[in-house]
Amino acid sequence: MTLARSTLAGDRLALARLLTLVENQTEQGRQALNELFPHTGYAHLVGVTGAPGTGKSTLVNQLARYYRNPPDGEMALQVAIVAVDPSSPFTGGAILGDRVRMRDLAGDAGVFIRSMAARGSLGGLAHTTASLVQVFDAAGFEIIFIETVGAGQAEVDVARLAHTTLVVQAPGLGDDIQAIKAGILEIADILVVNKADRPGVENTERALSGMLQLAQPVAPVFRHHGPSEGLSERAPAQVEVDAWIPPIQRTVATEGDGVPDLAKEIARHRQYLRESGELERRERARLQAELEALLQDSLVSRWRKSVSNSKYQEILEKLIERQISPYQGVLALLDGEQTL
Amino acid sequence: MTLARSTLAGDRLALARLLTLVENQTEQGRQALNELFPHTGYAHLVGVTGAPGTGKSTLVNQLARYYRNPPDGEMALQVAIVAVDPSSPFTGGAILGDRVRMRDLAGDAGVFIRSMAARGSLGGLAHTTASLVQVFDAAGFEIIFIETVGAGQAEVDVARLAHTTLVVQAPGLGDDIQAIKAGILEIADILVVNKADRPGVENTERALSGMLQLAQPVAPVFRHHGPSEGLSERAPAQVEVDAWIPPIQRTVATEGDGVPDLAKEIARHRQYLRESGELERRERARLQAELEALLQDSLVSRWRKSVSNSKYQEILEKLIERQISPYQGVLALLDGEQTL
Repeated sequence: MTLARSTLAGDRLALARLLTLVENQTEQGRQALNELFPHTGYAHLVGVTGAPGTGKSTLVNQLARYYRNPPDGEMALQVAIVAVDPSSPFTGGAILGDRVRMRDLAGDAGVFIRSMAARGSLGGLAHTTASLVQVFDAAGFEIIFIETVGAGQAEVDVARLAHTTLVVQAPGLGDDIQAIKAGILEIADILVVNKADRPGVENTERALSGMLQLAQPVAPVFRHHGPSEGLSERAPAQVEVDAWIPPIQRTVATEGDGVPDLAKEIARHRQYLRESGELERRERARLQAELEALLQDSLVSRWRKSVSNSKYQEILEKLIERQISPYQGVLALLDGEQTL
Repeated sequence: MTLARSTLAGDRLALARLLTLVENQTEQGRQALNELFPHTGYAHLVGVTGAPGTGKSTLVNQLARYYRNPPDGEMALQVAIVAVDPSSPFTGGAILGDRVRMRDLAGDAGVFIRSMAARGSLGGLAHTTASLVQVFDAAGFEIIFIETVGAGQAEVDVARLAHTTLVVQAPGLGDDIQAIKAGILEIADILVVNKADRPGVENTERALSGMLQLAQPVAPVFRHHGPSEGLSERAPAQVEVDAWIPPIQRTVATEGDGVPDLAKEIARHRQYLRESGELERRERARLQAELEALLQDSLVSRWRKSVSNSKYQEILEKLIERQISPYQGVLALLDGEQTL
């Protein structure tokens, strides 16, 4: 039985081994991904991002606990957490520790946590994360959290991976800094004000709703309900779905306060994605982005195999001596052109 | 006379037009870069980064003013500023305005300021910035500031471009957030505590020196001064250069306080780079990174021209239907393999 099949059958040890093979980008991992891929597309992917110190990890732990022990009669979900730490590209820092987190949820086979430090480029990081998520998805995890630290391109890449993106803020961490990161707000489907028992929570909320109002396009209040203007006079009835306005949800993750309401908002967003057709659109964009990133990697690694190291070093030396420009260097490497 | 030659001859209008051609990645811009490249390698490149609200722009303005009007008998330098704003990848935000800045230094032909909003990928951004810097370098600007907003991969890319990287902090902006970004500290050659007239400046300094002590490797206090252990008994005398420990410099940029001292630290770092051989090492790394980024872009754009859109769409549809995996999609695109 292959690792992929064992993973599909629910074997947790096989899953763990497969995740490692995938993370290390081995050929065996790639083969397994091919085998698993038709079984993906079922999980709901929740991105969680925000500055350090906002309590993201605790919040994700509490959400995991909630989905494992849901209220009255709802089905418990299998939960996976992929924790990505791209904050220190040089040391590959690991602020997020498996051990600290597992203490909370240890012994529950329905929760699986995987930490990843950033190695190499952030582009590669997003790609590896996407692959890990696919493994979890195929393995039957129904909700997958993708948690990342920091602010910048990595967060945008997370948003591209996730169906629902939570942006976590906390009072007293310099609201002006946090709020000015408009790029981060733009990827938020749900804004969470964690540590809401701290002073200044109103200020944080006010700053966020101010930013939200700036960011929102003019609300589509009046909608066209008359006869279709399309080719057919009897166009299929379009379901009217209001535009999604990111809600602001207060939580105190350490106490679990607000977590059930946050779970409700996630469910409401999931429903919105389905009804509006946005789920399909996001899936398309996500898979296309992954295809293109993978294509780029493959082109570069194929080229690397085709060129001799001595040739590469020769061009590099000429570049450093400023005998040729970077553009001329690339032409010489790709076409063997002898420039200068 | 070509734009490149006019630029070399000091024509500022030609310079401005050339910068636009380069920023728009035109063929004419590429040709000009080839022509200019042998004239580069003279400028000192200073990266300036830090969170929004730390007063980076004002600080860079004041440094520019200082280098234009240096104290007693020192030569005035030609100053270029490339201001990059990658903070909002979706809207291409432009927090930095040319107009606001120019008011300060307007009418001085020895200062040239260029703002760039982030368009497309951050990788592309770093690449375009490198090209603009080369134009300024060839045009005879002796000190070039590369200023960027935000925190993350973009800053690391700035550090790769610059000889000397200033990381700017300010009191009261959430020291814990700023300090925890170890990745940012690791790229700092000089730490600047701006707005040093504000309360909390001691806390900010303390947090920074704490982080620095954590980040420093064990200090090389004892050095080997005995006979060389190498092959030759009379190895060429190695110049002993102490390892660089990033200094912490207080400034109040709005008043110009601390700016002359900061300029001295930049000069001291320049000297360290020369004497330690680090300047040459950084130049190599910089040019190699640029060559590789350019190579990657070229490979992708060449491939794009070689594949038909209908073929690409067909593969993409199969991927979205989950008939093939992303890996299988890439193989099909690159080799025409019909998988599944």
